[in-house]
Amino acid sequence: MMNYEREPVSEALPRGFLAGATRAPIRPDVDKLDLAILYSEAPCTTAAVYTSNRVKAAPLLVCQEHLVDGRAQAVIANSGCANAATGEQGLADARQTAALTAAKLGVRPSDVLVASTGVIGTLLPMERLRDGVSRIKLSAAGGADFARAIMTTDTRPKYAGGHCGRQGEEYSLWAVAKGAGMIHPNMATMLCFIATDAPLAQPYLATCLREAVDASFNMIDVDSDTSTNDTVIVLANGLAGGEPIDAGHPLAGAFRSALTDCCVRLARAIVADAEGGTKVIECVVEGAASPADARRAAREVVRSLAVKTAVYGCDPNWGRILAAVGNSGAAMSEDKAVISISAPESGCVYVYRQGAPLPFDEAQARACLAAPEVHLRVELDLGDSAATAWGSDITEEYVRLNSAYTT
Amino acid sequence: MMNYEREPVSEALPRGFLAGATRAPIRPDVDKLDLAILYSEAPCTTAAVYTSNRVKAAPLLVCQEHLVDGRAQAVIANSGCANAATGEQGLADARQTAALTAAKLGVRPSDVLVASTGVIGTLLPMERLRDGVSRIKLSAAGGADFARAIMTTDTRPKYAGGHCGRQGEEYSLWAVAKGAGMIHPNMATMLCFIATDAPLAQPYLATCLREAVDASFNMIDVDSDTSTNDTVIVLANGLAGGEPIDAGHPLAGAFRSALTDCCVRLARAIVADAEGGTKVIECVVEGAASPADARRAAREVVRSLAVKTAVYGCDPNWGRILAAVGNSGAAMSEDKAVISISAPESGCVYVYRQGAPLPFDEAQARACLAAPEVHLRVELDLGDSAATAWGSDITEEYVRLNSAYTT
Repeated sequence: MMNYEREPVSEALPRGFLAGATRAPIRPDVDKLDLAILYSEAPCTTAAVYTSNRVKAAPLLVCQEHLVDGRAQAVIANSGCANAATGEQGLADARQTAALTAAKLGVRPSDVLVASTGVIGTLLPMERLRDGVSRIKLSAAGGADFARAIMTTDTRPKYAGGHCGRQGEEYSLWAVAKGAGMIHPNMATMLCFIATDAPLAQPYLATCLREAVDASFNMIDVDSDTSTNDTVIVLANGLAGGEPIDAGHPLAGAFRSALTDCCVRLARAIVADAEGGTKVIECVVEGAASPADARRAAREVVRSLAVKTAVYGCDPNWGRILAAVGNSGAAMSEDKAVISISAPESGCVYVYRQGAPLPFDEAQARACLAAPEVHLRVELDLGDSAATAWGSDITEEYVRLNSAYTT
Repeated sequence: MMNYEREPVSEALPRGFLAGATRAPIRPDVDKLDLAILYSEAPCTTAAVYTSNRVKAAPLLVCQEHLVDGRAQAVIANSGCANAATGEQGLADARQTAALTAAKLGVRPSDVLVASTGVIGTLLPMERLRDGVSRIKLSAAGGADFARAIMTTDTRPKYAGGHCGRQGEEYSLWAVAKGAGMIHPNMATMLCFIATDAPLAQPYLATCLREAVDASFNMIDVDSDTSTNDTVIVLANGLAGGEPIDAGHPLAGAFRSALTDCCVRLARAIVADAEGGTKVIECVVEGAASPADARRAAREVVRSLAVKTAVYGCDPNWGRILAAVGNSGAAMSEDKAVISISAPESGCVYVYRQGAPLPFDEAQARACLAAPEVHLRVELDLGDSAATAWGSDITEEYVRLNSAYTT
């Protein structure tokens, strides 16, 4: 078997994981599943990465408290209410949510993590939440309901998963996410939950997750806003058996790649499902003087409203790409940079090379920009570092969705 | 007389300055004035501030060369072509533009500054430009034509000006700007030219300009993109007489205030005339732990697409303001922050105070957000620093303007 094998769609949970969801309802006016539990029959080595926003929602604070020991056994997540900017009451509610879940599952409250997404500044409806928790039925087939329950303005659930390892040591990964885009009425949240039956040593799991998030969720841009609730959690219950994976384990690299691959696929899925977006912009920066420069240049290109609107309009305005790179803070020289636009089915068009615009086939460039996935490549010729970032385009529909909603 | 007196609209140039404009045309398809000269009968103490973009247009490089001695006597500016990303040929063209102007005026080429705005990646039409330079007629009444010639997608010329000083030492300032917004087909540029008859010592003039720009053009956001051509130039010919103003001069403070006031008024005018914008968002951050924190928090609020779209939709989503401050990197505590929304004719509505949403009059909040100038105030209660930033809202029209244009 290969070191790592993707699965196209993965609703099946790894060994020992159960999930389920219900409609509490958190918001009586929204008819969808909105409360979900992911549970492992065995305690899990656990790691999490949170938003860099200084305003952190109550559930994040509870996760941080409960993950001091790097161990958890369940996650309870809700949509419809972010439980953010809710003060002491919000914190008490998040703790109580963990406690209710712990009582239902027979685990310690400190082994339950909490995640919320939805409206800022409103309190959780604790009575309905309590009833909801009691109604949730957990099963090995509950992953699909879990994925649907955490959706807000997402138009589809987002999965990634696969297997890694070798004969006798096969691990399975399952991951779900919900998308970003500051949305009606207040905000969205990027949430991602990853479950694996691989045995993991804690410090190594945290390292792998940080690396995976840096290459994926930290390289996407919908509207440059970071929510108060962004959270990525990985639970590793070890039920596949074998020695705990740390940096020296023969399968360390395979697990790390698998985790990064899952996160990158989900990050792209979030961009592809961005509010009002019509296409995915992938920007690869190569030849940067440092990894940090490569990252900031790639991110600035997919962040730039000028680039986003040009790609939306299929306008091969390479000047906007060059200006975005120049604006990123990355070391660059316009006499060395090379810019190309390509798409999987439309070939590659070089538009700028080393200080001078290139004559190019505008029809072909427009065809590239009309593709559902547009590739922008910038070669800086200053070093060996590269990075890839993904962004959505910006459309009239984005503005409509984000302004016309009234509470 | 007061230390500083504003003028409502100021088309009159200070003593010894002449201006004029023509249609070269730089772009034959655009029917407007597009080439202009501002000239001083006496050499000027001169300072300039340029874009922080690493991609710098050819005219900026020429300005930098010519301002090594802090002295200039004329500016030639064109719209329709940014002369950016044009390599060696672009640099030669910018130098030749200065030389043609110098020959016309009988000054040294190194005393002529050059500024361009318009399309990236195309060369200046040097023959038409040469003819244009020869046709320009300079006069003391030419300021209005100058202001119109530098416009691109601006819907109106932008002036500021006034007088400062005291009896026997009265100085006059005249300033024009054109607006920002990455525009059709490639980009806009923020250009600002300031002329004064005050006598200035060079190092002090540069200090004053840097301070004025930091409080004005560096605090506005249309679409978070910095162009390759942004330039602010101040020319001080000293023809009002008197001792050169430096930090110890009794009128130093008055001149500094006057310069900053002109820049702030023009910066607001740029935001008010932003592409597709319908209102000005002013964000005041107070009680920040440091001036840098106050600046970055205020700027992030007016940059946030979530805030821009909410203000456009008159939706009092204070959660987006709180999240933007949290996202800015400024030190803040949600338990201390206070947020209010106000407008000159609609009063003030407090929406968030120290960790908790406040019940508020939503109709009044919507009325504030419907005003042409919306004030958002964030009190951080962590220190004594304050800053003000201005941004435009983002509308469907912005997206249409920036995507639908095809070259």
